[in-house]
Amino acid sequence: MRTQVAIIGSGPSGLLLGQLLSKAGIDNVIIDRVDRDYILGRIRAGVLEVGAVGMMDRAGAGARMHKEGLVHDGFSLSFSGRRHRIALKDLTGTSVMVYGQTELTRDLMDQREAEGGRTIYNAANVTPHEFDGEKPYLTYEQDGVTHRIDCDFIAGCDGYHGPSRAAVEGRGLKTYEKVYPFGWLGILADVAPVDHELIYANHARGFALCSQRSLTRSRYYVQVPLTDKVEQWTDDAFWDELRRRLPADVAEAMVTGPSIEKSIAPLRSFVAEPLRFGRLFLVGDAGHIVPPTGAKGLNLAASDVHYLFEGLQEFYGERSSAGVDAYSVRALSRIWKAERFSWSMTMLLHRFPEDGDFGQKVQEAELDYLSGSTAAQTAMAENYVGLPY
Amino acid sequence: MRTQVAIIGSGPSGLLLGQLLSKAGIDNVIIDRVDRDYILGRIRAGVLEVGAVGMMDRAGAGARMHKEGLVHDGFSLSFSGRRHRIALKDLTGTSVMVYGQTELTRDLMDQREAEGGRTIYNAANVTPHEFDGEKPYLTYEQDGVTHRIDCDFIAGCDGYHGPSRAAVEGRGLKTYEKVYPFGWLGILADVAPVDHELIYANHARGFALCSQRSLTRSRYYVQVPLTDKVEQWTDDAFWDELRRRLPADVAEAMVTGPSIEKSIAPLRSFVAEPLRFGRLFLVGDAGHIVPPTGAKGLNLAASDVHYLFEGLQEFYGERSSAGVDAYSVRALSRIWKAERFSWSMTMLLHRFPEDGDFGQKVQEAELDYLSGSTAAQTAMAENYVGLPY
Repeated sequence: MRTQVAIIGSGPSGLLLGQLLSKAGIDNVIIDRVDRDYILGRIRAGVLEVGAVGMMDRAGAGARMHKEGLVHDGFSLSFSGRRHRIALKDLTGTSVMVYGQTELTRDLMDQREAEGGRTIYNAANVTPHEFDGEKPYLTYEQDGVTHRIDCDFIAGCDGYHGPSRAAVEGRGLKTYEKVYPFGWLGILADVAPVDHELIYANHARGFALCSQRSLTRSRYYVQVPLTDKVEQWTDDAFWDELRRRLPADVAEAMVTGPSIEKSIAPLRSFVAEPLRFGRLFLVGDAGHIVPPTGAKGLNLAASDVHYLFEGLQEFYGERSSAGVDAYSVRALSRIWKAERFSWSMTMLLHRFPEDGDFGQKVQEAELDYLSGSTAAQTAMAENYVGLPY
Repeated sequence: MRTQVAIIGSGPSGLLLGQLLSKAGIDNVIIDRVDRDYILGRIRAGVLEVGAVGMMDRAGAGARMHKEGLVHDGFSLSFSGRRHRIALKDLTGTSVMVYGQTELTRDLMDQREAEGGRTIYNAANVTPHEFDGEKPYLTYEQDGVTHRIDCDFIAGCDGYHGPSRAAVEGRGLKTYEKVYPFGWLGILADVAPVDHELIYANHARGFALCSQRSLTRSRYYVQVPLTDKVEQWTDDAFWDELRRRLPADVAEAMVTGPSIEKSIAPLRSFVAEPLRFGRLFLVGDAGHIVPPTGAKGLNLAASDVHYLFEGLQEFYGERSSAGVDAYSVRALSRIWKAERFSWSMTMLLHRFPEDGDFGQKVQEAELDYLSGSTAAQTAMAENYVGLPY
């Protein structure tokens, strides 16, 4: 098989890139190790920056998102027993869109199918080859047969554990990493959200987050030690702990119910440099991971796709490789700022036992200062809604 | 001896408080363990917020400061080989005043002497007594004789190692502390400053600061391990290391010369709570220490004096103890914000080997973001020029 751009991974970044390329008349194939149902079974958060919303529209897949997504003009910080709202729209002119990543992925898949885009599922041992030269190709196995896709470029949209980054290990790849000494215990429940916006809570017992997927489905989190097992946490124990970490009025208003999903996720910051190796590109989670505080993961995948698509369009349209050559530098400049923001939100809101009481007091002082400073709130808001592409 | 307010410590905070009280007709005595020359021999930085400048004027001691002090409308951050100026005055409408603490102390002492204020020097074993009741007193020894000063209030302006905080240890005093794993090696030299404003440098080799006392006297610092001894550092080695940590144009413009002082200072964050125990108050360094990054130490002493003076004035003028009762809460609210700022500037600009390359990259990302965000620069500037009293 021959295509112009071979895309490894049928998650949001691979699908967004594929759609944009197809709309620009650039042939592409998406290949994934698993199938459509497996991918749509993944539960992920979804707070979309205006840039990511625009990418969905450009991909022709934004209709349901605009209909069902929830526009949030702010979020709240809770600390020291009180609450302060960060008025995103008033401060920056911009809102965010709450729309689950699963729904977004489904919309992109449906749109791709409707337009006749090619996707190969259940492809084992996908491997990039010869990407240092001008004739790279992929191999994969299916039903015991090895197949080959010849292409001009390979886009590695295959996540943290995918074959793309593995293919460039030891070839000048430098990685930066920070692992946080705790996890998020999350619960999904079909109850009305306690607030129409998100609440990020700093508390001496640890971080908590009141989030939502829709007007009838809530997603709540509490910081837990990494040594905790999900089986230790009954639903009742979770709700009790969540309420303890929230201001009294919020705790009292909380509607609880049986969990339909419960899990513990670790938090990590990770960046690989560079993101281009000849004609192979690392996109989204394949190149970087953020802790979920601040909801930047999916949004960074979207901005990576933006930069890569611009470069590929320039290559095919103007016969210039300037854009693809610049992909890594352009993407990383924005990635590092989002890594910085995600790290700082994580450091501000979580309990770090090793920082002692001084650490907790400094966090409360920062939140107290922030609640009285328009400049500091604007800085937080402009990062939250997303820095410009 | 009898007075209304007994002040322990003849540094800037004790002298400022004494002057304000005298001007308001409230009798006071300052008592110090050492003498005038010893106090004036201490070398300290001096970047004054507008609030501290105003306090000097209210104390009637601001004339020479306004004549000889240097008004700075901004400072620079250097990182990743480049420089970005934080335009304090443009961003906040306010400047800072560079005027050495030694000169400020001298002006206050001269003014106090001219007005006939009482100061007792070389007083050994100064000890506060009975401050839980309404008749506190101090004892001290001089020439083998024990003396007593009866008073209404005791102001502990006696620094981190003074007797005031020692007198309340174990009486509900809670302390918060962070010690940083490095020190500042500082040099004083009679050479023209490399820039007319301060330059704070982030560098993979460690922090550096280009500061000044006057147009002909420079004060430079480099971050060093706490295990370094000042004897290991020749002047040449210092200048070489300083230049390595600065952008090329700054390093080339640097005028060097023999050091007239050289020392290594540790960095610490420390806060004691509360700051009032009956009729004893902890003021300035007696109650809190900041790392020097951001130059908040002297300025916090000035704002403590402001809150305490307001309370005492209210007590004597309106027979209300509301102001003195509120001293601790009012002072600590501002102190914690300044502690937060000093900590954050320290964390942003120094090399923390234990945070690895990720830590260095996050610092560079924050500085890169900052250099492009008016909101973030305004937040930094409003803290640097001083939050409102």
